[in-house]
Amino acid sequence: MQVINSPREMQELALQWRAEGKKIAFVPTMGALHEGHLSLLREGRLLGDKSVLSIFVNPVQFGPREDIAKYPRPIEDDLAKARDCKTDAVFFPTPETMYPNGFQTYVEVERVTQGLCGEKRPGHFRGVTTVVLKLFNIVLPNIAIFGEKDFQQLVTIKRMSFDLNLPIKIIGMPTVREKDGLAMSSRNVYLSKEERQTALSISQSMATAQEMAISGEKDAAKIIAKISGIMKSAGVTKIDYIKICDSKMLAECSQIGNGTRLLLAAFVGTTRLIDNCEL
Amino acid sequence: MQVINSPREMQELALQWRAEGKKIAFVPTMGALHEGHLSLLREGRLLGDKSVLSIFVNPVQFGPREDIAKYPRPIEDDLAKARDCKTDAVFFPTPETMYPNGFQTYVEVERVTQGLCGEKRPGHFRGVTTVVLKLFNIVLPNIAIFGEKDFQQLVTIKRMSFDLNLPIKIIGMPTVREKDGLAMSSRNVYLSKEERQTALSISQSMATAQEMAISGEKDAAKIIAKISGIMKSAGVTKIDYIKICDSKMLAECSQIGNGTRLLLAAFVGTTRLIDNCEL
Repeated sequence: MQVINSPREMQELALQWRAEGKKIAFVPTMGALHEGHLSLLREGRLLGDKSVLSIFVNPVQFGPREDIAKYPRPIEDDLAKARDCKTDAVFFPTPETMYPNGFQTYVEVERVTQGLCGEKRPGHFRGVTTVVLKLFNIVLPNIAIFGEKDFQQLVTIKRMSFDLNLPIKIIGMPTVREKDGLAMSSRNVYLSKEERQTALSISQSMATAQEMAISGEKDAAKIIAKISGIMKSAGVTKIDYIKICDSKMLAECSQIGNGTRLLLAAFVGTTRLIDNCEL
Repeated sequence: MQVINSPREMQELALQWRAEGKKIAFVPTMGALHEGHLSLLREGRLLGDKSVLSIFVNPVQFGPREDIAKYPRPIEDDLAKARDCKTDAVFFPTPETMYPNGFQTYVEVERVTQGLCGEKRPGHFRGVTTVVLKLFNIVLPNIAIFGEKDFQQLVTIKRMSFDLNLPIKIIGMPTVREKDGLAMSSRNVYLSKEERQTALSISQSMATAQEMAISGEKDAAKIIAKISGIMKSAGVTKIDYIKICDSKMLAECSQIGNGTRLLLAAFVGTTRLIDNCEL
């Protein structure tokens, strides 16, 4: 497995692979790999002749009061896991090589980034699309694989790829969960034992929402009120949002229907968790 | 010579060429080809195994009160000229296929687009970078060639390519001029006989600026005052700007030095002309 720090070197390797007719599958991450990431890497291993992982805690997608300093960076563990998944190359650049002095170009997807996390984290998705487009141009993948846990991010990247005519297939993979239902996230390490218990109410309330929908409840407001109650009684510190949206444009829906999706973000202690599911 | 309207078909042809190891040289234009464009096409023919011309009057780079409706579109003439330059493919899409319903992704280069034409034409460079990035992703060139007449555009595209790690070499070619000095432009057809005479004062005043600089004049303000006077006496309707800037970041300079450049925009009648030269 090659570990490459330089964007130029990574791009040269990718160009060489492409010239040899190799299909490149790419998994961009911020590291602190968990089973969710590994499911993407394994899929990349299956779909591509070459599989590339990037690890980059992207400063441009963090707000001024967000957790970039304490974001976990267990690089040796990450490399071992990538090796286990038979990854061909890990691209692990520094912020200085990704954003050299004078950097001033940004990509913005306008509408699908406006609500949900976009509303709560101004500039976040601009940072995501900018770095993902840069990574795409460096790694030159045929296929890029993202997790559905960050559902708004997945929709945003699909939209960017379509709008900018990128010759890349974007694939979304199902959220991987702990045995008790909590969605895997690099941020779960922030949770105390007690908070970890409270956080369970997020996936539990989503299960309740799904049961209500299956039983014929169509009224989005009723479902939201119900699960908001569950999370609050469980001791969730602050609900950032609970929304029911269509899964393409992320427009809010008042009625459950084809392709509607429940999306939520909540603080447990000082840790912000997100999750989502089909309804 | 192939003429292709569909972005998908153009991209498939480009992918096929790339898979065969062909080097693609690309000249993006809005059509109404003149000798300036043809010099770019000939350079592309020399540098690439395959040469591609695009013709697309990009609505996103025109302001609401600008000349998109009357912009010349002599497509049959353009195709004949492209054929003469031994162009391999002309990409000639419709606005509807380039900007389908729901389009919402834009690329913005922030600092170098702020002054000069960017100040006078808000949104213009955002439209340029967005369409050029789309065209790059469709045509997948190794080399892209632009004219120096649109100097701020060239600087902006170089900056975008660098910032976004595009695997594309951006080449700028010298402005081609009429025998009497007027810079070739698709907009010159708007000029009446009298206006055409007045427009000559633009290149003449640039020659004066160069003489002043060669004679040792270092003061940018003096040079600007002098040539502003020349253009006004010649009957130029309105000077949009005359600036002396460094040629990398386009920051204004008060002194002539290494790499300083004179850039100007002026209306002759209702026609807006731009020009620039090294000082």
